[in-house]
Amino acid sequence: MSDVFDKCRNWKDYRIAKATGLYPYFRAIEASHGATEVEIEGRRVIMVGSNNYLGLSADPRVKEAAIKAVEKFGTTCSGSRLLNGTLALHEELEAKLAKFLNREAAIVISTGFQTNLALASILGRHDIVFSDRQNHASLVDGIRLSFATERKFRHNDMDHLEQLLAQAEPGAGKIIVTDGVFSMEGDLCNLPRIVELAKHYNARVMTDDAHSMGVLGEKGRGTSEYFGLEKETDLVMGTFSKSFASLGGVLAGPFEVINYIRHKARSVIFSASMTPASIAAALKALEIIEAEPQRRERLLDIAEKMHNGFRAMGFDTGVSVTPVVPVHIGDQVKCFRFWRALHEAGVFANPVIPPAVEAGHALIRTSYMATHTDAQLDRVLDIFETIGRKLNVIPETRPTVYEPVKIARPGTRILSNKASEKWAAGSAGLLAEKGGITLEQLSRMSSREVAGKLFDAVEQLTWRAANLQPDDLRKLGNAPMKLWEKRGELPGLLLEKGAHFFMRNGTNGTQSEDRN
Amino acid sequence: MSDVFDKCRNWKDYRIAKATGLYPYFRAIEASHGATEVEIEGRRVIMVGSNNYLGLSADPRVKEAAIKAVEKFGTTCSGSRLLNGTLALHEELEAKLAKFLNREAAIVISTGFQTNLALASILGRHDIVFSDRQNHASLVDGIRLSFATERKFRHNDMDHLEQLLAQAEPGAGKIIVTDGVFSMEGDLCNLPRIVELAKHYNARVMTDDAHSMGVLGEKGRGTSEYFGLEKETDLVMGTFSKSFASLGGVLAGPFEVINYIRHKARSVIFSASMTPASIAAALKALEIIEAEPQRRERLLDIAEKMHNGFRAMGFDTGVSVTPVVPVHIGDQVKCFRFWRALHEAGVFANPVIPPAVEAGHALIRTSYMATHTDAQLDRVLDIFETIGRKLNVIPETRPTVYEPVKIARPGTRILSNKASEKWAAGSAGLLAEKGGITLEQLSRMSSREVAGKLFDAVEQLTWRAANLQPDDLRKLGNAPMKLWEKRGELPGLLLEKGAHFFMRNGTNGTQSEDRN
Repeated sequence: MSDVFDKCRNWKDYRIAKATGLYPYFRAIEASHGATEVEIEGRRVIMVGSNNYLGLSADPRVKEAAIKAVEKFGTTCSGSRLLNGTLALHEELEAKLAKFLNREAAIVISTGFQTNLALASILGRHDIVFSDRQNHASLVDGIRLSFATERKFRHNDMDHLEQLLAQAEPGAGKIIVTDGVFSMEGDLCNLPRIVELAKHYNARVMTDDAHSMGVLGEKGRGTSEYFGLEKETDLVMGTFSKSFASLGGVLAGPFEVINYIRHKARSVIFSASMTPASIAAALKALEIIEAEPQRRERLLDIAEKMHNGFRAMGFDTGVSVTPVVPVHIGDQVKCFRFWRALHEAGVFANPVIPPAVEAGHALIRTSYMATHTDAQLDRVLDIFETIGRKLNVIPETRPTVYEPVKIARPGTRILSNKASEKWAAGSAGLLAEKGGITLEQLSRMSSREVAGKLFDAVEQLTWRAANLQPDDLRKLGNAPMKLWEKRGELPGLLLEKGAHFFMRNGTNGTQSEDRN
Repeated sequence: MSDVFDKCRNWKDYRIAKATGLYPYFRAIEASHGATEVEIEGRRVIMVGSNNYLGLSADPRVKEAAIKAVEKFGTTCSGSRLLNGTLALHEELEAKLAKFLNREAAIVISTGFQTNLALASILGRHDIVFSDRQNHASLVDGIRLSFATERKFRHNDMDHLEQLLAQAEPGAGKIIVTDGVFSMEGDLCNLPRIVELAKHYNARVMTDDAHSMGVLGEKGRGTSEYFGLEKETDLVMGTFSKSFASLGGVLAGPFEVINYIRHKARSVIFSASMTPASIAAALKALEIIEAEPQRRERLLDIAEKMHNGFRAMGFDTGVSVTPVVPVHIGDQVKCFRFWRALHEAGVFANPVIPPAVEAGHALIRTSYMATHTDAQLDRVLDIFETIGRKLNVIPETRPTVYEPVKIARPGTRILSNKASEKWAAGSAGLLAEKGGITLEQLSRMSSREVAGKLFDAVEQLTWRAANLQPDDLRKLGNAPMKLWEKRGELPGLLLEKGAHFFMRNGTNGTQSEDRN
């Protein structure tokens, strides 16, 4: 007899991560110092793990606008846009966003996630959606909620996209949907080629500009402005939880399409509207985005500084041309250890592990605010260098040369930086060492490589053992073998040795605790 | 060659509704006077179309809490709960809600809609979900996003539910999902019987308490508290945009289940978290919900007053036992006319038409706040009576007797009031007069009935003609026949006469405008 809840009870990853001290999620922020620094567990850390690109969430003008809206309209609209949840403020924001984005109309929706779900309303049973494989989860879900046919193309692979378009029923309605900036790797979609293909195959184009609105283009209007293709991009989506210092999303395009979505999208008509505070914050942020282009300039300068700073140390920041600066680590456990060391040294960044990236391509994702000071950024770079050397991610001495980053500044039209071999292999899923290292593989390694592997393994095990708490160990009692199965990338021999070492320590800990 | 956007361009309902002056949606609120009255188009109206049940959105303590949170944490968390979007405030709200709801754990999610989508994460390919046909759209979408099998049972039909449970693969994981209070008709799910069936067939139970949390039960904990079945209800969901004066949702249940959802639900991990202001508002609202039971008492007193007030006039408020007070109108066009007349007389209520209800069962949905004054409520009743008589929804003189309403007060265990024949037929979809009235049907009518139909039809047409503006008519030029197809419930003869009348006026209007 099965139970819907079984899968929850049998899920051990959480217990293991907690027990090994390698649990990096849901860190509670206790206080904020201008958004660039926050307090966690009583410690002040530099925040480089936020999407608050322009730093406006702490801007006094934005805060004041939100406060005034609460005073005037209360804390909620208590209903959907369709019925009782529309304020004149919603309409004002929609009108200003339509104007800002050079589109006939715009609709604002309670979250960015639900904004992408709203796409479902215009996709019919006979339509075909062409979707980049690395598109955001909310786009994937929006397409799943429709009855249209989905065709996924390999990330930014225009030949694959063309192939799928050519194979599709010519009479069907078609739309190509893509992130403008991809959130994990920081590269841009190939909008110029997408627009060409769309014209040729009679398809519509939609971009998710969550990470580019407020960031890319001379006026901050996002990917299509950056490429000079606003007219050719039929629908543009943005979120307010990034540059706009709020919570919500916008979809802009032709009046008839937006109006249809307004009345038909289930994530619009069956959900309470954006709060007065969130609407007012987004309105004020939009005003600042338009009035202060120097914030975008500063943000892109920071992006360049950080990419090059990391690269000069020997880190690989991959293909990104934006303020999303991912740092390749590789192994998942090492990535968690890197995160933990950053946390302890006072830097808040996010570990990104499979399935968000390919196995063997775990990375630390950093992202920046226009309001970060150079002192903060230099401190982040220093800490990364120290930890990177300690964990063998970068060499002890800086490389003599590095390839400087290219940044997607207004006036340029680049998609990405050239990926290193390692990065390309990681993105393609070729770095995963499944099933550990065989003796044969070990025999082909240089002694230096073997020593490196040994060092890594011992350090990991020691670190884990040192970090284990009696209480954690008791919880771990259920699943120690599972832990090692999961960490199977370690060579068999070392794994066995490590397990003995670990278990001996573990057992002691458990027993001493049980005597209490 | 098809185009994804064709369906938007060809959609005429909006143009028709606008052209006929019968467009009731997206009414922009320009100012709020303590939430019970709002300003629209420069006019002050009494709000009885909100889900702000306890009136807390305008409570000075709630507003102050939201403002302080903005001051301390800014206007957004700029990221997902999983990564950088968790404040200590989120954890505090979760802990307090778990305690309040008598559950091991709780998770708060950015919107109520996304809270129900999160259900998808615990539904596997081999699970079966039993779902009431009138469940909220977000539950429907949450189930659709999962890979589980869905079995819909007829609204509150426990025999049908049992039949489906008995037919299901015995070894499969099972969960019964139902609204606690159904949002359109205001009746309760048959939780006592659902719980019995769940035990017998080894199924889990989840209730969506969007409209009952803060409202039902002695402590306001919702449907399961009301029925004394909290232990037996495995998962409970609530929204903050109703009694909690905020935007967001909560899911509470066993620790392992909630923890799994926390890490796996796409609507949690891929969406920005609740804003500081929204979290703080919900926290303060929870405190008030716990401390001030008199708000619930007042709300239920108001519900009783309004139900009985309407009933005494001859209106049908159906099966509702809650502060959701639907007023049966029947015909969709008449419902829009009723709404329009309410709006003009200073009452904000919501017309509910197919597909939200069955054809022929259009209704005006009213709902109340604990903070409504008796003077406001009496005025609403007076206005309903005047319009109801004018539009022939109620007789010219009050009926001598009416069946007083039963209200789901603490201590009772009722599901619904007894439906009138008309109401039951409406809910079952038996009121729709598809294809108009035949001559044969007409011949069987009393002369009084025929006169009534004639009067209605002439009044509708006159009213429409009077409300047509030259500009609307120009837009309407594309689709006049479509209008009449849609309004096919009118008898053929009258329809034809009306169409001539209408077209003559319409054509004149258009021509005079074109000369400008």
